Amino acid sequence: MKAAVLYGFDQQLKLESYDTPEVESDTDVIVRIGGAGLCRTDLHIIEGVWKDKVDTELPYILGHENAGWVEDVGRSVRSVKPGDAVIVHPVITCGLCLACRAGEDMHCIDLQFPGITQNGGFAEYLRTGERACITLPEGLEPKAIAPYADAGITSYRVAKRAAKRLWPGTRCVIIGVGGLGHIAVQVLRELCATEIIAVDRSTDALKLAQECGAHHLVDASDGGGVEKVQELTKGGAEAVIDFVGEGSAISDAVAMLKKGGIYWVVGYGGVVEVPAIDYIFSEIAVMGSLVGNYNELSELMTMAGQGRVHLTGVEYRLHDINTAISDLHHARLHGRGVIVP
Amino acid sequence: MKAAVLYGFDQQLKLESYDTPEVESDTDVIVRIGGAGLCRTDLHIIEGVWKDKVDTELPYILGHENAGWVEDVGRSVRSVKPGDAVIVHPVITCGLCLACRAGEDMHCIDLQFPGITQNGGFAEYLRTGERACITLPEGLEPKAIAPYADAGITSYRVAKRAAKRLWPGTRCVIIGVGGLGHIAVQVLRELCATEIIAVDRSTDALKLAQECGAHHLVDASDGGGVEKVQELTKGGAEAVIDFVGEGSAISDAVAMLKKGGIYWVVGYGGVVEVPAIDYIFSEIAVMGSLVGNYNELSELMTMAGQGRVHLTGVEYRLHDINTAISDLHHARLHGRGVIVP
Amino acid sequence: MKAAVLYGFDQQLKLESYDTPEVESDTDVIVRIGGAGLCRTDLHIIEGVWKDKVDTELPYILGHENAGWVEDVGRSVRSVKPGDAVIVHPVITCGLCLACRAGEDMHCIDLQFPGITQNGGFAEYLRTGERACITLPEGLEPKAIAPYADAGITSYRVAKRAAKRLWPGTRCVIIGVGGLGHIAVQVLRELCATEIIAVDRSTDALKLAQECGAHHLVDASDGGGVEKVQELTKGGAEAVIDFVGEGSAISDAVAMLKKGGIYWVVGYGGVVEVPAIDYIFSEIAVMGSLVGNYNELSELMTMAGQGRVHLTGVEYRLHDINTAISDLHHARLHGRGVIVP
Amino acid sequence: MKAAVLYGFDQQLKLESYDTPEVESDTDVIVRIGGAGLCRTDLHIIEGVWKDKVDTELPYILGHENAGWVEDVGRSVRSVKPGDAVIVHPVITCGLCLACRAGEDMHCIDLQFPGITQNGGFAEYLRTGERACITLPEGLEPKAIAPYADAGITSYRVAKRAAKRLWPGTRCVIIGVGGLGHIAVQVLRELCATEIIAVDRSTDALKLAQECGAHHLVDASDGGGVEKVQELTKGGAEAVIDFVGEGSAISDAVAMLKKGGIYWVVGYGGVVEVPAIDYIFSEIAVMGSLVGNYNELSELMTMAGQGRVHLTGVEYRLHDINTAISDLHHARLHGRGVIVP
Repeated sequence: MKAAVLYGFDQQLKLESYDTPEVESDTDVIVRIGGAGLCRTDLHIIEGVWKDKVDTELPYILGHENAGWVEDVGRSVRSVKPGDAVIVHPVITCGLCLACRAGEDMHCIDLQFPGITQNGGFAEYLRTGERACITLPEGLEPKAIAPYADAGITSYRVAKRAAKRLWPGTRCVIIGVGGLGHIAVQVLRELCATEIIAVDRSTDALKLAQECGAHHLVDASDGGGVEKVQELTKGGAEAVIDFVGEGSAISDAVAMLKKGGIYWVVGYGGVVEVPAIDYIFSEIAVMGSLVGNYNELSELMTMAGQGRVHLTGVEYRLHDINTAISDLHHARLHGRGVIVP
Repeated sequence: MKAAVLYGFDQQLKLESYDTPEVESDTDVIVRIGGAGLCRTDLHIIEGVWKDKVDTELPYILGHENAGWVEDVGRSVRSVKPGDAVIVHPVITCGLCLACRAGEDMHCIDLQFPGITQNGGFAEYLRTGERACITLPEGLEPKAIAPYADAGITSYRVAKRAAKRLWPGTRCVIIGVGGLGHIAVQVLRELCATEIIAVDRSTDALKLAQECGAHHLVDASDGGGVEKVQELTKGGAEAVIDFVGEGSAISDAVAMLKKGGIYWVVGYGGVVEVPAIDYIFSEIAVMGSLVGNYNELSELMTMAGQGRVHLTGVEYRLHDINTAISDLHHARLHGRGVIVP
Repeated sequence: MKAAVLYGFDQQLKLESYDTPEVESDTDVIVRIGGAGLCRTDLHIIEGVWKDKVDTELPYILGHENAGWVEDVGRSVRSVKPGDAVIVHPVITCGLCLACRAGEDMHCIDLQFPGITQNGGFAEYLRTGERACITLPEGLEPKAIAPYADAGITSYRVAKRAAKRLWPGTRCVIIGVGGLGHIAVQVLRELCATEIIAVDRSTDALKLAQECGAHHLVDASDGGGVEKVQELTKGGAEAVIDFVGEGSAISDAVAMLKKGGIYWVVGYGGVVEVPAIDYIFSEIAVMGSLVGNYNELSELMTMAGQGRVHLTGVEYRLHDINTAISDLHHARLHGRGVIVP
Repeated sequence: MKAAVLYGFDQQLKLESYDTPEVESDTDVIVRIGGAGLCRTDLHIIEGVWKDKVDTELPYILGHENAGWVEDVGRSVRSVKPGDAVIVHPVITCGLCLACRAGEDMHCIDLQFPGITQNGGFAEYLRTGERACITLPEGLEPKAIAPYADAGITSYRVAKRAAKRLWPGTRCVIIGVGGLGHIAVQVLRELCATEIIAVDRSTDALKLAQECGAHHLVDASDGGGVEKVQELTKGGAEAVIDFVGEGSAISDAVAMLKKGGIYWVVGYGGVVEVPAIDYIFSEIAVMGSLVGNYNELSELMTMAGQGRVHLTGVEYRLHDINTAISDLHHARLHGRGVIVP
């Protein structure tokens, strides 16, 4: 099959012929890729940022936001069959450890992560496991919804967690309205009745935020984001969800919090530095939020099937993947890039 | 009356005669002090650490951990009467704002904090409000339980919050088993069935931890606390409660966490520095926890009345308060110091 | 002042001159009534149904859904002043007991309930307490929003409680889309992304449900409500909120539940009879939900101010109150009746 | 192998030779039985009470509380191996449905229940699935802990659910201190700091309750249980857990509740009848609680391994099973009966 392969850090992906994956274990599922979302994490992997966290031997195929059609299944697979349109939860899990049984797939003690720890979906076929497959609601096409597999559930999870405390009268700030942020705005609007304040430096991003249902738009290109949010909220927001996670976004996020507020860290790159006395005096919290679990992806797909959320995607062919990567890197990609074989 | 008054930062308190407080508003309560706990926050106030947070004009009387007997009440006070033995919740609240109504006294929008923002209890009498008074269960004596008013509920609140996720099979690390930590160990033991790992550099503190019910003791005097906790927990603890909040305690606490774990910040002085990618990769959280609310103090007093928790206190007379302060500063004070008029 | 007074059970209210209430305690607030909602509970009181629960001496003034303008205040009142437009939380609470401090006004140990245990708002003036007053958001008029004071928060509370478990993919059935039900549909739609199934025997009620945002309408006039809900949900609903509470509504509600589902009882009149084995086998719950608390009313008023919920009201003059009562009794009143002095 | 087989309702079990179960699917596990607990549900099955709920074809082997040693495993089983001592979670689940992934094994859409829907453990061998096996902590012997597999987790689950709201100062009533109740008392004592009130008609049961840590004992043999509980609690208990579920236990349980209280139904046989107005006026809830899930059993086994809970068991040989059944039926069995092959 054709695939885009990472041979070395800080290099372009190499387009080449690659062995088509086959069923190896009883619970394997081979998916013919319909579309694979391009994520900022792919850039970070290429830059070598993840080397210390996950030591995957090169070369391998990137791509962890996958959707397509079931091509083949292992002998014990019952819940999907060849031909089914599926979105692929990003990780393969054991289903037996306490974390899996508590629904927390990302904390599985025996986790594999195609596109990060083994071959992913920037290719024609992908090997995953039965536990990762979600049959698509009618009317949804794989390449149109692939980014939900990671950008989507990451946004969904953090929005759902935040929404638990975001009753009417509260405010939630969304910093960074890109591939993840624009989904988070829509999900929040559906899951609670908070006022949503979108903060970004780009006019296009703020326009997208408005279309997605944000109640207030804050242009932070002049560095005055904190003051504007403080003015709008009269004392800070109950929650700040940060999809940037570097540069001034971090200190801004902390400064935008109300007493008792929660800073949700989703974007990364920088360091969160807060004096202990500030944690206590204002009783704030800083909470990391990772990719969502299977049930969260299932809930998000239900919402997509019901037309409650929409993706803004940009399609690239597999042989143009390095262009897509370059566009994302240089902020020329508005919406989520989707690689189609 | 006699009182210990702060006239300047980095100075000893001055023992002097002071106007006895009187009822001013309809809801005021005058308490004859039975005992007033000495807190590390008193040291921090004297050092000027709190100047930026709370701008109280000097001179004033410190002391925010108070218990005694009701002496006089305002005309609308119904729930206590002169002669009642009471413990005094540390803040005076409006009872009308959304925070008060949600039970979160510390987030009251019109809060007064005797001992921090106005005259406190290192004196013979204290003025507080009706909403701050809790009648003592039979058998409890004011000077024996005064430290519950701040050290106690601060420990109780964080332990109760942490306990919600500390089911059997989890581990909770307590860093620093002093005035607060030794209460937290006892409360945790009562509120859940986690395994408690006490970490301290002092042999006396670890002995106290054992008496209070800790299941494992980790001597961190050699700097090897993290390794020992990692070994005991086989991969980190679900919760770390840090009553030190400075020096290596902070980075140690973060390094002791399991995936999905929570670092509870209670002690302060240092800065919590964590890369955003670590928040996400391990999906950890850092949560500040402040003084508890009235209902939490009420619950703690119920536990004290039932004999489920015990305080280790050391009594000083009011005229010896500067000795007490010096003993606390130089780590010569084992247990909680209580100032008795 | 003019007032509508209950002199005996199963009698019409008597329109007569009555002593205008005055400030008696320091925290009293006198409200000039702008509008007072008429509630099915008023009918039940007149019928004597509440005699066993609350033994109020006749004659007295009914009316527990009140809004208007502050006319006079007790000497310690700070949070409202004469002229302020307010909605009145239905109960007067002590603000000191553990229930009040936990925010649960309805469980206050020293509760007064104007319109039920003392004079209410079917009159020109009402005496309430400072803790019951919520200043209206700009743009809201007392007589237009009075029903939120009871019908509104009762619906809001149950919808908020139910919404906690109603993630995308779940279904919630609303039985009875009248004065309360039509608010509940709107609140649910704002607080979560469940699918809402409205069940009623009246075509008008179902039309109202649709306008309020229900996703499915089930006409139960032919007795086939359970089958239709089972078909729509393919196995039952995660929640059923019952605003009828009598007749077949109760057994229908239980029969509509999925395993693990919750039946929320709000309407009353009948008896809930469920074999213990059914509770266990399907692990269902039956939960009563009462009038909401102050913060819940405050949240609902925020939503009303933001235009997220709308009331369908019908105005009657105070001297026509017996007509209004008769209209409600005979199901001629579509929307909530509001009595205007 | 030898087995005790049910050939007809209201008959004794027949001791006979039976085909030894073998591995059929890749995830099957064959367990050599060390002990199988005898449950009141076995009596109910024999009486035909479960016929309407679960239609299992006779003859088959009862026994759903099993522990022993792994004898053989299917080819995909990784987490246990022959020789391992295990306790067997009562149900076999798919691991793929939303309920399984949310940890709620009992709500699995493709559930098998050995001893209820297929052959159980009153025999020498049992076929179960990999997902049902929990390796025993060191020091625990199968026949000593078998009853935790159902009596244990049923008690654990309800106690854990109840404990979430049982902070210090609350009271929890346990009705019926038999095989389940005596575990519930111990678990509650470990998971929270509520005051435990044990209610039973038997002096032996109350003695057992005291040994297990109950704070108050109420002898209900004179019918005065409600009055005594009301007196002890001064207004009712926050929670009542009912392990009887028939006769006067049900109405007593409801009458023992405080406003806002929860009645947990675990025992069954009777009908819970409560007027809707009582649900609302006192805002109470009636909640069914079923067998616990795998993680709950795992937590309970951790507690057993730590010596926090103890079982009172009575051993019978397999060929004496009808004696055991008769002893349980006639209340001659104190503690939990365990059948040993």
